[in-house]
Amino acid sequence: MKHFLLLIMCASITSTHLFAQTPTAEESNPKRTKYMQGYPPPADKRINARDGSFFEFPALRYSVCHMREFMPTIGVERLNRTPVHCFEYNIDPNIDNLTFTPTGSNDTLTFAESLPINYTDGILILHRGKIIYERYFGELTPERVHAVMSVTKSLTGTLASVLAAEGIIDTAKLVAYYIPELANSGFGDATVRQVMDMTTAIKYSEDYTDPEAEVWKFSAAGNAMIEHPEGTPQGYYDYLPQIVKDGEHGDIFGYRTVNSDVLGWIIARSSGMTVAELMQKVFWSRMGMELDGYYQVDALGTPFAGGGFNAGLRDLARFGEMIRLGGSWRGVQIIPEEAVKDITEGGSAAPFARSTYAKGLPGWSYRNMWWKSNNEDGAFMARGVHGQAIYIDPAAEMVLVRLASSDKASNTLLDPMSLPAYQAVADYLLGK
Amino acid sequence: MKHFLLLIMCASITSTHLFAQTPTAEESNPKRTKYMQGYPPPADKRINARDGSFFEFPALRYSVCHMREFMPTIGVERLNRTPVHCFEYNIDPNIDNLTFTPTGSNDTLTFAESLPINYTDGILILHRGKIIYERYFGELTPERVHAVMSVTKSLTGTLASVLAAEGIIDTAKLVAYYIPELANSGFGDATVRQVMDMTTAIKYSEDYTDPEAEVWKFSAAGNAMIEHPEGTPQGYYDYLPQIVKDGEHGDIFGYRTVNSDVLGWIIARSSGMTVAELMQKVFWSRMGMELDGYYQVDALGTPFAGGGFNAGLRDLARFGEMIRLGGSWRGVQIIPEEAVKDITEGGSAAPFARSTYAKGLPGWSYRNMWWKSNNEDGAFMARGVHGQAIYIDPAAEMVLVRLASSDKASNTLLDPMSLPAYQAVADYLLGK
Repeated sequence: MKHFLLLIMCASITSTHLFAQTPTAEESNPKRTKYMQGYPPPADKRINARDGSFFEFPALRYSVCHMREFMPTIGVERLNRTPVHCFEYNIDPNIDNLTFTPTGSNDTLTFAESLPINYTDGILILHRGKIIYERYFGELTPERVHAVMSVTKSLTGTLASVLAAEGIIDTAKLVAYYIPELANSGFGDATVRQVMDMTTAIKYSEDYTDPEAEVWKFSAAGNAMIEHPEGTPQGYYDYLPQIVKDGEHGDIFGYRTVNSDVLGWIIARSSGMTVAELMQKVFWSRMGMELDGYYQVDALGTPFAGGGFNAGLRDLARFGEMIRLGGSWRGVQIIPEEAVKDITEGGSAAPFARSTYAKGLPGWSYRNMWWKSNNEDGAFMARGVHGQAIYIDPAAEMVLVRLASSDKASNTLLDPMSLPAYQAVADYLLGK
Repeated sequence: MKHFLLLIMCASITSTHLFAQTPTAEESNPKRTKYMQGYPPPADKRINARDGSFFEFPALRYSVCHMREFMPTIGVERLNRTPVHCFEYNIDPNIDNLTFTPTGSNDTLTFAESLPINYTDGILILHRGKIIYERYFGELTPERVHAVMSVTKSLTGTLASVLAAEGIIDTAKLVAYYIPELANSGFGDATVRQVMDMTTAIKYSEDYTDPEAEVWKFSAAGNAMIEHPEGTPQGYYDYLPQIVKDGEHGDIFGYRTVNSDVLGWIIARSSGMTVAELMQKVFWSRMGMELDGYYQVDALGTPFAGGGFNAGLRDLARFGEMIRLGGSWRGVQIIPEEAVKDITEGGSAAPFARSTYAKGLPGWSYRNMWWKSNNEDGAFMARGVHGQAIYIDPAAEMVLVRLASSDKASNTLLDPMSLPAYQAVADYLLGK
């Protein structure tokens, strides 16, 4: 049995085929591949979440815009409490022709050329809150949501940051204080802060070549589409207490999805609302969002805080712009400014520098489940494993959102093509 | 293994416990029973769609407002193409105190007293398009959708009626013309008209005490949450061709859900859109709906045309009012008037009179998957198995929508309490 969640979480695969393009974006376009089309779809075009076939490339390129059709989900609804916010447009025709050099390459590419190479499904760039660039490819349209995968972690981290700013969560407290079920687990004596920054020291392998790796059990526990025999975990919260400690918390950044789900659990216990309910209450019902979002849920109804959110391109841009503006949106302070400052100004780069990630992202750090470049622009980002990103460049007053369904389940492989492209736009906006 | 779809389809159970009330509406209120509450829910409060526990009363009272959290679904979205329509209110305080006598009873009840007896979750009455009565109970709120179950059939029938009026479906043609896969099945030589009016003669038992009854196979085929071993149907359209003929088409009304799914198949093949896509295109994106609706889907992505729709109370009222007005809504002819006329004026009562339903609903008939009372008001209705209803009384200029989660999976048991209550309101509005 294949476990699709692996792919959501897998962010450390390395490969020499940096720009391998088989099949290409055009060849793998769902309008050509025709997965799940027809009444009923022919046998060779049927995919599902039970055996993981829906998450294999290129079927993935269809599934990212249809996750709810494959599994149980819970809505994050806009609820019509505020009218839909309409962006102002100030389309800049020069962006397509901006050039950049991919990391480790001698080639020069235009911004437009880079988009199919990274299997972009949608990309939107805001400059000072106005849309200067917006494109849709593949299966995505302005009226569809897309799986953001690990971008979800940054949303979970933001919610925790809000609860901390409001005094509902004390980040210095131990995990066991909020979740007694985790007292005897590897998380028990970690602080909430260490969970938020992913510096917990736990025995938890995401080595997909090892059939005994813990990630398989986590994946199975959270998959609502498979049977859970009695005595086995029925969902995430049945599994997490089984994780044991390995080392000292706080030393090294270790990017493990289970931290996000522990944080989601702390959020639920301390606030009385799941991440899905809070996302709706705090953001989706208050910001003039266009589309209802949703989370995939496990068999116990728990939203997947580590990777299960789905939303529209423009709504993610609204979220990103609110973060860029310190939590303010159209004159309303949606979340406390301290909650954003703790993301942008908090933390230390040392645990990150000790991790394997320092090689590909030198000088970066990780705070409240956001990735911080610590570059001169102060850029920071949310990152999904198939190339999804909310990239915020404060100096350039830019928010860039990209939705993608790359064949490569690894930002390590995607960064060389995407980060220099984002920087090229920022530099252009800065007049460099 | 239990098969919840049975309960959706079961509409012919008889019992002598007409007003059995254990547990009561208040005792079974999800706020008291607390199914799926907690992080995670305790073992005795966990329910799911795989073993059918989510559909057992009283868990059902929770599940009807949370179907998407238990199974894959596809959205029927409002898409912000029109602003939300705001109803005018003209609340009539007299309605609660209207009295009526349940069929076969000597008691007199008030309208308000009847609501918990029938486990009403929400009820809304329009008079001349204005809301004169609106109540929410149990798990339902104005911001939640509710499973409408077999009300879905009438929506499917309406779509077919629209396609017929537009010349896209020829109701005189044989099913095999549209669906070659059904040529050798019991449906092959039935006309589309016979499918729409459920007068097909097929060997299809809905006898739930018979483990060999065909309904079990249909139910299993459509349940996305269970495994489908190779060689067994993976979805509705894999199963329907297996149904064989039994008798002569056209003679007798036989209320069998499979007709609705055959009709959904004909709709998809002839229009190139599933019932979910058409519902969105024709109604949900054009009528100022408040909430996105959705359909449950099988493992092949097929929306359950016989019982899988979920929608908000007010949006169903908007739909009902548009039907009452001959397909017109706020100055726009949403669907051809002929499509509505074919429901309200078409058909013959003879096949219904020959059926077992004639006893409980004397003088009624069935047309385009709507139930027609043929009473002096010309009332007709959509009916769901746990008491859901869209009841349209043209003479009284009334549209009544009720969402419910009764312990009794049978309108035969619910009609004695509900139909006289609806008539009491209609008579009051008519000044009788």
